[in-house]
Amino acid sequence: MGNKIRTVILGGNGFIGTNLAISLRQKGEEVVIVGRREKNDLPEGCTYIQGDCLDTAFIDSTIKENDKIVYLAYNSVPKTSFENPLKDINENLSGAVALFSVLKDFKIDKLMYVSSGGTVYGKTSKEKISEEHLTNPISPYGITKLTIEKYAHFFAEVYHLPIVIARPANPFGPFQNTSSGQGFVAAAINAALTNSTINIFGNNGTIRDYIYIDDLTSAFSILLNSEYRDAEIFNIGSGIGRSNKEIVDEINRYANADGFNCAISHLPERVFDVPYNVLDCTKLKTLGWNATTNFEEALIKTWNWYLNIKYD
Amino acid sequence: MGNKIRTVILGGNGFIGTNLAISLRQKGEEVVIVGRREKNDLPEGCTYIQGDCLDTAFIDSTIKENDKIVYLAYNSVPKTSFENPLKDINENLSGAVALFSVLKDFKIDKLMYVSSGGTVYGKTSKEKISEEHLTNPISPYGITKLTIEKYAHFFAEVYHLPIVIARPANPFGPFQNTSSGQGFVAAAINAALTNSTINIFGNNGTIRDYIYIDDLTSAFSILLNSEYRDAEIFNIGSGIGRSNKEIVDEINRYANADGFNCAISHLPERVFDVPYNVLDCTKLKTLGWNATTNFEEALIKTWNWYLNIKYD
Repeated sequence: MGNKIRTVILGGNGFIGTNLAISLRQKGEEVVIVGRREKNDLPEGCTYIQGDCLDTAFIDSTIKENDKIVYLAYNSVPKTSFENPLKDINENLSGAVALFSVLKDFKIDKLMYVSSGGTVYGKTSKEKISEEHLTNPISPYGITKLTIEKYAHFFAEVYHLPIVIARPANPFGPFQNTSSGQGFVAAAINAALTNSTINIFGNNGTIRDYIYIDDLTSAFSILLNSEYRDAEIFNIGSGIGRSNKEIVDEINRYANADGFNCAISHLPERVFDVPYNVLDCTKLKTLGWNATTNFEEALIKTWNWYLNIKYD
Repeated sequence: MGNKIRTVILGGNGFIGTNLAISLRQKGEEVVIVGRREKNDLPEGCTYIQGDCLDTAFIDSTIKENDKIVYLAYNSVPKTSFENPLKDINENLSGAVALFSVLKDFKIDKLMYVSSGGTVYGKTSKEKISEEHLTNPISPYGITKLTIEKYAHFFAEVYHLPIVIARPANPFGPFQNTSSGQGFVAAAINAALTNSTINIFGNNGTIRDYIYIDDLTSAFSILLNSEYRDAEIFNIGSGIGRSNKEIVDEINRYANADGFNCAISHLPERVFDVPYNVLDCTKLKTLGWNATTNFEEALIKTWNWYLNIKYD
């Protein structure tokens, strides 16, 4: 009760939602996680509400004045979106627009929409990508993520829904799903832990901007507490490009020491893989943020977390 | 028969489709108009096929190898899209993606997607807008038009569907619907012919780039016959900005001479009106195109066309 601000994480059951909940709780904030399925293993001190965040009546009974809302709900990843782009539109895009339409009549403090810095830009030159870069996604997932940004801008401009937009690069860390087809670090760690093989497309695979989850959640906190509310867009990445091959080699350093190994199978490059994606985060840095976690330390922490889970 | 290229106009019953059909026929080309409703008054020499261009079996029986296809079908305008953004997504956006999904397996010559240079950019500074300008539409209509461009790019890149994208400014001329809420020239002429009043929001209304329909259809011909097939985008406009007030004043010059008058009612500016939208068409001009029609002559021709219809 009182004046404490609540943060409600819509679609908060996954990798990012779990870590965000933990970090907000560590700051002593009130956290409500909303998800569609039953949930027992909740981050300490969080409240869980089971429900469909696209159901108007449910939102009406869940959202309170001055809430901060983080919108993470999404039921596709880049790979699966190719199989059924219409499903991606019907569920993710229509769902977001329905939610914005409902929330525009609430007096919330802030809505943070979590877009995708890894997919909305599409193919780019090998330079760091700033928020003003042209956006030509080459996956249906990237297109719906981008289009929701456009609706976010529209609802902010026309209905004054207070929105800020995050474009994370490729986050990694504890709680990431190892088999969703999204999250190369988790997939490579899983391959190592099962002494199996991971596919790399091309000689060294794609170049991506891997950011440790704690640096991502610290950026989210800054954006949630910022004055931005007109659908301004912020890249969130390490600004450093690493190939799939480098990731596997690095993981194998720790894995081999522990008696595990991730083998690599090289396959031809795929037309729908962006070869290079590294974000320019100058804009976010003006708000005092920095990706402070050392990459090697973060990767060791992540490796050890999965290793411990395996032998729990 | 033979090697003559057919142009199939999907959603060809409206203002742009009718004028495009006429102009292609004048060049001796084969033209097929596809529309959902029954149609009797067809432009001379055209074939009409009634059907739903989102029905796979229908497209299968309608489209032939080497066809040029113009995609004009749309069932919203900027004004109506506000009332139901989800309907706009379900019908226009999902419809376009379903169509692209079907067409990707055809060996067509070219698909031209007709987007909207008047809405995809959103609010801009008072400079001519080039194709690289940021796109932040402030209407659901503009967002779906823009999003279909993104899918067009995706289908061109990943499935090699040969696409070119047109971004027309505000076309005017014969056959424009006077009451759809889109087409200020037609609405003002209609107001004059009925001696009634037209609303202008603000002192002089918005500034728009009005292009005569013949200049638009000549641009379409050039794009359909060009080598562009990777979802390249082309603005099509006059490059000249005119206010609503200027349009009404000019129409009243002819109207008053014929015994008619369009009165103006001034209302407050609306949040969802872009104040200024004038296109930079340098890119299209490199293909040898120019907006050659004199604006005053085009407006007189248009006025006389509606006047004749009224007294037919």
